[in-house]
Amino acid sequence: MFKILEGLRVVESSAFVACPLGGMTLAQLGADVIRFDPIRGGIDARRWPITKNGKSLYWVGLNKGKRSLAIDASKPEGQELLGELIAAPGAGKGIFSTNLRADKGWMSYGELKKRREDLIMVNLLGSSDGTSAVDYTVNCAAGFPFVTGNHHAEGPPRPVNHVLPAWDALAGVNLALAILAAERHRRLTGEGQLVRLALSDIAFAITGHLGFIQEAQINQEDRKGYGNYLYGAYGSAFETSDGRWLYIVVVTGYMWKELLKVTGLGDAIGAIAARLDLDFRKEGDRFLASEEISVPIRAWCAQRTLGEIEATFKGTGVCWGPYRTFRQMLAEDPRVSTTNPMFSELEQPGIGPYLVPGSPIDFGAFSREPPRRAPLLGEHTDEILSQDLGLSNSEIGRLRAAGVVAGPVEVS
Amino acid sequence: MFKILEGLRVVESSAFVACPLGGMTLAQLGADVIRFDPIRGGIDARRWPITKNGKSLYWVGLNKGKRSLAIDASKPEGQELLGELIAAPGAGKGIFSTNLRADKGWMSYGELKKRREDLIMVNLLGSSDGTSAVDYTVNCAAGFPFVTGNHHAEGPPRPVNHVLPAWDALAGVNLALAILAAERHRRLTGEGQLVRLALSDIAFAITGHLGFIQEAQINQEDRKGYGNYLYGAYGSAFETSDGRWLYIVVVTGYMWKELLKVTGLGDAIGAIAARLDLDFRKEGDRFLASEEISVPIRAWCAQRTLGEIEATFKGTGVCWGPYRTFRQMLAEDPRVSTTNPMFSELEQPGIGPYLVPGSPIDFGAFSREPPRRAPLLGEHTDEILSQDLGLSNSEIGRLRAAGVVAGPVEVS
Repeated sequence: MFKILEGLRVVESSAFVACPLGGMTLAQLGADVIRFDPIRGGIDARRWPITKNGKSLYWVGLNKGKRSLAIDASKPEGQELLGELIAAPGAGKGIFSTNLRADKGWMSYGELKKRREDLIMVNLLGSSDGTSAVDYTVNCAAGFPFVTGNHHAEGPPRPVNHVLPAWDALAGVNLALAILAAERHRRLTGEGQLVRLALSDIAFAITGHLGFIQEAQINQEDRKGYGNYLYGAYGSAFETSDGRWLYIVVVTGYMWKELLKVTGLGDAIGAIAARLDLDFRKEGDRFLASEEISVPIRAWCAQRTLGEIEATFKGTGVCWGPYRTFRQMLAEDPRVSTTNPMFSELEQPGIGPYLVPGSPIDFGAFSREPPRRAPLLGEHTDEILSQDLGLSNSEIGRLRAAGVVAGPVEVS
Repeated sequence: MFKILEGLRVVESSAFVACPLGGMTLAQLGADVIRFDPIRGGIDARRWPITKNGKSLYWVGLNKGKRSLAIDASKPEGQELLGELIAAPGAGKGIFSTNLRADKGWMSYGELKKRREDLIMVNLLGSSDGTSAVDYTVNCAAGFPFVTGNHHAEGPPRPVNHVLPAWDALAGVNLALAILAAERHRRLTGEGQLVRLALSDIAFAITGHLGFIQEAQINQEDRKGYGNYLYGAYGSAFETSDGRWLYIVVVTGYMWKELLKVTGLGDAIGAIAARLDLDFRKEGDRFLASEEISVPIRAWCAQRTLGEIEATFKGTGVCWGPYRTFRQMLAEDPRVSTTNPMFSELEQPGIGPYLVPGSPIDFGAFSREPPRRAPLLGEHTDEILSQDLGLSNSEIGRLRAAGVVAGPVEVS
């Protein structure tokens, strides 16, 4: 049962997407991650999507493989227990926390460091300037909604949010990365530290790394919205004769040659290049003619079913994929099934058996293991109090009676 | 000049977004990352966005802080040099590579391992089933385009791609995480390994962690498209009297109370709750009434300028943000300027001074350092051959004359 991060222990104070995903990323690689929550559940305990009987699919999705401690952290006794837990001996203990808690109170880095000198604390802020921010408000600020889903021919852009909480997801993986980098440093030097990162910086860093900020600054113009066309190369969405959609993308010369050969559209598209005086061996020129190139390809796709197109493209160098709804993905894509070793079918109490992904990273030194389900709220309260903190049954009973700890609790 | 990942060395064989971002993530934390490319530049050397004089802002954005080696890896002598470089002594040497190269030929894990027993190789595949896939085709498969930008009242959904290459970006950070996890294991055991991950698995894992797969499976229905409304809670986009847009989001009871108080719309929205027989203290009920709640808020925003709204919301508990284009972001947001310690202004040869983000992670054990610019293609060829591989000037001259190595090269 040895896994890549065996021996790493993390206490997680979190809610919503980013911090829970950070902790789960480590938990799915074998770290011991204890998430603590209020005894009636945290602010995200009931978050949608929910099942028809009101169970949060969101919460169980983002907390798989952790141990759950239900504890009233507003009570001094709860704070004392958490302080002890965070400082308890054990290899590589770190802590994640959200927004501002690193600055003040019992859970500040300064207070916790008094308990354990080499503590690693990773703190996620909303905005780098200390104001509150969430994925949706960071997304507004980062420019993408004005180029998403808008086509430049259709007048002034209206914002279109992407539905994927991409900044939260990126923050989650960055949190896990930060823990590992800080633990590497501690292993080399014995030194702990407070690590801080802001969701807004996650977004602005990626926006800058991808050249969007620099394009605005150097070229002094805003990127237009190109709808589903791929900026700077050739890519577009097409509808088939049976009402399905697919995307065809060309990012190499080979993919381009194959597309022309397999569709038989070489002559038609060659005529477009000649008419526009462009050289379609250059991907920038293919981009400039995206709309013209798409006309014959659109007609070609509209005359064929998705199945016929799949059969035609199979085994060729055409880079393409069908669009699928979430249900079509489940029904049609074997990569989203237990034939993919990343997925397992797990029994989640109150929800039933369902498909669950483990870590996407396959470490050759270990055989890939099935993911573990999410805990019930406070499922590990007694185990943590007795095994990790050495409390007796009678002490645990007293804490339960005093409303300091609880669990397992049915959230509803 | 000591940084958190000092002593980690990585050789990167890559192109496009994911692998270069993985290497750059480590480089910006202090690792020594050598990217090698063909002597006329890799497949992504000229990729858009480009400046008006044809320099790729994309390439320099994703390769900051690396050393560049321009080498002909199709020649046996080039392969031998790269093999030596990968196996050269040095703390924590690992290698990234893209698509399938781990399986065969001189750069396979098996061949390279003969040179260095404890090699760590991290290999990114497109699709978990071995077929080719890129961000755009993975995105089609993962369900999001049918819920992005579509409003459920407007008939059958058409796919809307998000413009952010979110899966590539997530893969990049996961690659960096994989290197650190594998290096931790090597530090503990002495053992290297081949680590594999697929872009498709990155996407399907997040889609599953967020509950989309499980919602489709358990509830047997596809999530509808809700346009810019936030699913499961309250959030919406609004236009101001001066033609700007903002997003207001409510993910806590406090944010809700503050929104009603600050806008003075408590009575109007209370009447909506009564009429619909919903309890707006519950976020699910707020979500169900998203359109009704938005009517008075939309009118309130339409009567005010963005500046007036900003002044009204400032210092309150309302969670909101203005939408900005990329140029507005540069012009208006101090978080995207050198007042934010993440950003520096760097001189990039051929492009000029511009704003560049470093790592979003601020490690307390080190003072934050400015990012380093991207190299010219082959800028470090001589340095690497002499310092890392111990070649003499005459040997380097012979390799240059034979067309095995080159640089610095002006890409155009």
